[in-house]
Amino acid sequence: MSANAFRSFEREGVFRPTVFIEAPRLGERLGVKLLLASETFQHTGSFKFRAAYHLAASVPESFILAASSGNFGQALACACARLGKRCLVVMPHDSAAAKVEAVRAYGGAVELTDTSKVSRQERVEQLAREHPHARVASAYDDPLVIAGNATLGRELAARADDFDLVVAPIGGGGLTAGLITGLRAAGRATPVIAAEPLLANDAARSLRAGRIVANDHEPPTLADGARVLCVGRHNWAVLQPSLAGIVEVSEAHIAEGVRLLFTLANLKAEPTGALSLGALLAEPERFRGRSVCCVVSGGNVDAATFRALLQG
Amino acid sequence: MSANAFRSFEREGVFRPTVFIEAPRLGERLGVKLLLASETFQHTGSFKFRAAYHLAASVPESFILAASSGNFGQALACACARLGKRCLVVMPHDSAAAKVEAVRAYGGAVELTDTSKVSRQERVEQLAREHPHARVASAYDDPLVIAGNATLGRELAARADDFDLVVAPIGGGGLTAGLITGLRAAGRATPVIAAEPLLANDAARSLRAGRIVANDHEPPTLADGARVLCVGRHNWAVLQPSLAGIVEVSEAHIAEGVRLLFTLANLKAEPTGALSLGALLAEPERFRGRSVCCVVSGGNVDAATFRALLQG
Repeated sequence: MSANAFRSFEREGVFRPTVFIEAPRLGERLGVKLLLASETFQHTGSFKFRAAYHLAASVPESFILAASSGNFGQALACACARLGKRCLVVMPHDSAAAKVEAVRAYGGAVELTDTSKVSRQERVEQLAREHPHARVASAYDDPLVIAGNATLGRELAARADDFDLVVAPIGGGGLTAGLITGLRAAGRATPVIAAEPLLANDAARSLRAGRIVANDHEPPTLADGARVLCVGRHNWAVLQPSLAGIVEVSEAHIAEGVRLLFTLANLKAEPTGALSLGALLAEPERFRGRSVCCVVSGGNVDAATFRALLQG
Repeated sequence: MSANAFRSFEREGVFRPTVFIEAPRLGERLGVKLLLASETFQHTGSFKFRAAYHLAASVPESFILAASSGNFGQALACACARLGKRCLVVMPHDSAAAKVEAVRAYGGAVELTDTSKVSRQERVEQLAREHPHARVASAYDDPLVIAGNATLGRELAARADDFDLVVAPIGGGGLTAGLITGLRAAGRATPVIAAEPLLANDAARSLRAGRIVANDHEPPTLADGARVLCVGRHNWAVLQPSLAGIVEVSEAHIAEGVRLLFTLANLKAEPTGALSLGALLAEPERFRGRSVCCVVSGGNVDAATFRALLQG
């Protein structure tokens, strides 16, 4: 992929621009000047559409396979529908009905797999052997994913005079790697700090160890978009030299982030999307008095979960 | 006020642009092509800031009195703070603490009045006699309010090729009168349909009667922004000849509108803000197959109320 390719998507209006929201009451509560960059209104409700579309548009294959229980599946289905391609998303058999329905609503095929018998990744590999002309897409470890997410970095770059630093969620690392890539391509040195669930702190441990460290199992954090074993190696190559730090966020601070966004910024965020707010709650002294752009990565959370989060 | 005055506010970036959200899944559910125009991220979380700022900036008085239990109070407090003016907002003594706190957070003074002894309007009149140099502001019956809200109409006019008609909530009528004024000033004949709670259907009855008809008492609708006795006479002068119709919306459809915006558009709306969605649910045949712009007028709803709405 070339820089021209993603500039062309931007020109064509493929991606919805991120929604910037100045949040003075919320910022006052947190002791910062706060700008939110919300991807909750992106196509399919999360930043994942940027990566999925960029990938689906850039590969020659017309059939794409992926394992996803969440936002990437919806994003890929929507992207393929727009591009006249097909996709098959492998999801755990006990996925929430709403998530399965969402992938199908965007025109994606779904295969439910009993993950106690065969892992999703194994099942995708089986399918890849059955469909040798298919492309297997990774939700977070592919240069095309970084390039897609870099379009958000370029949008932040255009507003970068308004803030000192960017805080964004980290799971597999595709978002933060994309933000750094996009900001630097636009000539901006703005520091990017990642916000990671304490329960799934493999990226923080990796940064301390100087090499990729994996979780033993998929961590049971509220932030389901960060339930990964480890950062992708393509992302790591960007993140290790360039990330300005990682804040580890407790489950309580993730939930409090969801509530504060709801109450003081009228924003519906999914728990993963509230990680950046949670980082400001976790280490207030690190951010106090600064101008911070918090990326809210997505808004896809079902009503029952959200009700429980609001109750606290 | 002149057309130049509000163009100048727009130029200065006083108002945040409305957030347009294409909502294909929600539109599909409702059988329409749907564009949302969300004022939930406007300063103070509702369109009322447009009217409040325009009024506060246009009058010579530096002290403004108003009765408001809701969004207008916050909006006026915020507008006055920005303009270096003072305001006093009279609120019922049993107002939700969060609403009182919000007015104070924006720098407004609050007087709590026992409305079983003296109505808020009477108390404002008493205060006006005590403060002869103060301006008494109406939340919805003043040409300056219409002109302020017309700035939203002008924003819709710039996108009017994308939809056949506009649906917006009606309470006192300031929003719909402003939308019509702004659209027509920009040369757009786009029809505007009002969405009114069935429990508070004075505007619908007024349109049928050909004169302003009032409710006997403040109606107990979920849509607290529409709890008024009747439309303002300045608004009526705009609405009677120009409004394309009024849809009366049940409480169940208001609540369903809140849930659908949450689930299929990631939008946190207050019940009044969901009235336009409720109108599409109430009269689906009227809208089926059309391109509709639904104005979501505000997002200020507390967590407990929202949790109850999500439960259904």
